[in-house]
Amino acid sequence: AMDGAPPPTSPTGLSAYVAVSQLLGLTLLATTGAWLGRYRGGVAWHSPLQFNAHPLCMVLGMVFLQGDALLVYRVFRHEAKRSTKALHALLHGLALLIALVGIIAVFESHRAKGIPDMYSLHSWCGMATFVLYLLQWLLGCGFFLFPSASFSLRGWYKPQHIFFGITLFILSIASCLLGITEMLLFKISDSYSQFVPEGILANTLGVLLVAFGLVVGYVLTREEWKRPPLAEELALSMDFKTLTEGESPGDGSQ
Amino acid sequence: AMDGAPPPTSPTGLSAYVAVSQLLGLTLLATTGAWLGRYRGGVAWHSPLQFNAHPLCMVLGMVFLQGDALLVYRVFRHEAKRSTKALHALLHGLALLIALVGIIAVFESHRAKGIPDMYSLHSWCGMATFVLYLLQWLLGCGFFLFPSASFSLRGWYKPQHIFFGITLFILSIASCLLGITEMLLFKISDSYSQFVPEGILANTLGVLLVAFGLVVGYVLTREEWKRPPLAEELALSMDFKTLTEGESPGDGSQ
Repeated sequence: AMDGAPPPTSPTGLSAYVAVSQLLGLTLLATTGAWLGRYRGGVAWHSPLQFNAHPLCMVLGMVFLQGDALLVYRVFRHEAKRSTKALHALLHGLALLIALVGIIAVFESHRAKGIPDMYSLHSWCGMATFVLYLLQWLLGCGFFLFPSASFSLRGWYKPQHIFFGITLFILSIASCLLGITEMLLFKISDSYSQFVPEGILANTLGVLLVAFGLVVGYVLTREEWKRPPLAEELALSMDFKTLTEGESPGDGSQ
Repeated sequence: AMDGAPPPTSPTGLSAYVAVSQLLGLTLLATTGAWLGRYRGGVAWHSPLQFNAHPLCMVLGMVFLQGDALLVYRVFRHEAKRSTKALHALLHGLALLIALVGIIAVFESHRAKGIPDMYSLHSWCGMATFVLYLLQWLLGCGFFLFPSASFSLRGWYKPQHIFFGITLFILSIASCLLGITEMLLFKISDSYSQFVPEGILANTLGVLLVAFGLVVGYVLTREEWKRPPLAEELALSMDFKTLTEGESPGDGSQ
């Protein structure tokens, strides 16, 4: 767009799907807030309500922000790759920080109430997801953000980074569903089976989490919506696709 | 291989990953059996143990058989497409039948014990997954197995079929994780937090389910392992990839 040409347009449908994903994401946050605010007494830090910071932070960080971080290469398809990459890393970093606050909330709240840690399937899946997500972020920064890694190394790592990135997003949503089920069976075990409003609302939050994952996953994996290589990248031989297909323009063969 | 040429080989690594997936799948079934047999009194139909048929059928049908049905295009990469397709449809059909038995088990067991149906997030996710899986199977048969659908229609539907197929496999595993959590909180709510063996075993089953999904998902999505178009398909212009890229050899343009 800098040379006066008309700005490139997005493929048909992509913008609509991205808009739906953002509506779903905001509905997720509102539904989590409504559950905690209306039925669980609200959220506070130095208080018996500290536990409630856990679901709020995990949905915001590990689902909404992580999902949006995955979408930046589709949304900003024609921006410079360097700035898109920086935004990708920044959003994941923010997601990690908010998730860390959410994890501290549950450990401190357990300590205050004398509840044991890390015995449930939710805690196993959730903690594994968080630790691997942190590792994936560190590896991503090391390979792609700092100029240290060679082009061929980046080309080898990129498909792994994408596969494990989508996997960790799915695992994050699955961990949230497990957390919702645990919380309902702890808090309203007597009335859950009578279709009380709190149970319906929390189940709906679970369905919305799945819907958000579905829409984000569809946008990410649709072949025609993948980010096209930019002219500047092709000129500089920095296109990773070329590298993964076996050529190695960084080793002097050009 | 019919013309006396050496049989085509599979790509490096694919066989190892498929072998690991099958080991994990069998371990899944053994772990489910061990949980139900050792801690839940075993499995029987006309008995108070009828409920236990539910987890066993769902893990066997919706996870192991569904996962193997997804793998057939990678495992039998050089067989005729028609027979691979038939095996794909057959395995999914068997998975659906076994899952139906598992669903009948839980409804009959609830009725016998006076427990309400369909109130939990597990039941919502699981039932939605089963109904959509049945729909996907019917659509798959209609589009690909019977000679009614035009090539261009098949080419349009194929990427949707693949995306929703992988999505339903992921949702099946997520529903199993929710079921494990529910069952533990119903049956051993008092001792689960004390790291009793049953809790550890059932959590481990959850981790194995995730590992099976991870390995199957990796095999399915790795670009170099996708099924190559066969010479016979290219000759007959029956290659769907060509179709999805915009050509329409079925409408007489050749």
